[in-house]
Amino acid sequence: VDRCFEFTGSNAGPWRVLDVRSIIGDAIASAPALAIAPAGLSSPRAPGAWSLRGVISNIRYAAAVERDTLTARQAGLGRSEALCAALIPIRKNPAWWALAQDERRAIMEEQSHHITIGLDYLPAVARKLYHCRDIGEPFDFLTWFEFAPEHAGHFDDLLVRLRASHEWSYVDREVEMRLERAG
Amino acid sequence: VDRCFEFTGSNAGPWRVLDVRSIIGDAIASAPALAIAPAGLSSPRAPGAWSLRGVISNIRYAAAVERDTLTARQAGLGRSEALCAALIPIRKNPAWWALAQDERRAIMEEQSHHITIGLDYLPAVARKLYHCRDIGEPFDFLTWFEFAPEHAGHFDDLLVRLRASHEWSYVDREVEMRLERAG
Repeated sequence: VDRCFEFTGSNAGPWRVLDVRSIIGDAIASAPALAIAPAGLSSPRAPGAWSLRGVISNIRYAAAVERDTLTARQAGLGRSEALCAALIPIRKNPAWWALAQDERRAIMEEQSHHITIGLDYLPAVARKLYHCRDIGEPFDFLTWFEFAPEHAGHFDDLLVRLRASHEWSYVDREVEMRLERAG
Repeated sequence: VDRCFEFTGSNAGPWRVLDVRSIIGDAIASAPALAIAPAGLSSPRAPGAWSLRGVISNIRYAAAVERDTLTARQAGLGRSEALCAALIPIRKNPAWWALAQDERRAIMEEQSHHITIGLDYLPAVARKLYHCRDIGEPFDFLTWFEFAPEHAGHFDDLLVRLRASHEWSYVDREVEMRLERAG
């Protein structure tokens, strides 16, 4: 799939890893740098301390009006001022995946306001979601965030709000990696 | 993923291929028999004239009440009387995949009654859906059906009704393969 990307932690890459911590469950190995590159699902992994793959897929929950608001407000990746980044791999538990579509949507948005909370941080925090549950990866999602250093506190707020939500009670593994663009 | 399966057309397998036809777009190669086996996403393909992989995933559209009705009414695969089968790989066009979740749900069920139509054929027609859009396969879905010979006309009705729906205007490739259990 040309929508599949590989995140690799090794000694070299355009992002310097500042911190890796487990929020829930096992952490992942530490490495000084991170690179992101297109990958084939059956191609060999790039060498490194760890690698995670994810696929950019279709919208799973957002309604048209939400998608349009997000599209109008969000910024793209790669802004020159966005020197800070975060990679947050998460896995949700089997109870979440056994829910029907309307049940997951109700928990995610009507109860937890996931989309609405995210809107509060646009365009400062740019975001890209990769799906990996169906490709045999250890996590279900990888979310990549980019923001300017002056919005780092703002980004911390976003994480606090999401992690306090009902939706997060279904998360059974979460790792937080903080990065900065390598000189 | 232990939810990934490979359908292989070759000279040997528990299902005899009776007919392969293109409904929309290119057909696939013909082979006298079909086998279905668990597969690793990065493992080599089984030898044969063709192979298609798909992943059993979470519910994408059905609401809880619909899921519960389906679960209560549907039969499992492998019934001794289910000597007939069909494999229907389909691909939907980019316009479909660009729609938001509520738009796809409205077309699929409120306008096209996909779930409701399927219920009319339970438990006679057993069904299993495999997802393959995000794993780089030529189709988006593989649907596998099993039924007794006396329900073959009933199954034909199901296909006619689904193909007449608004949802099907988004299908840009569809192949129909009919099979019977090998002696």
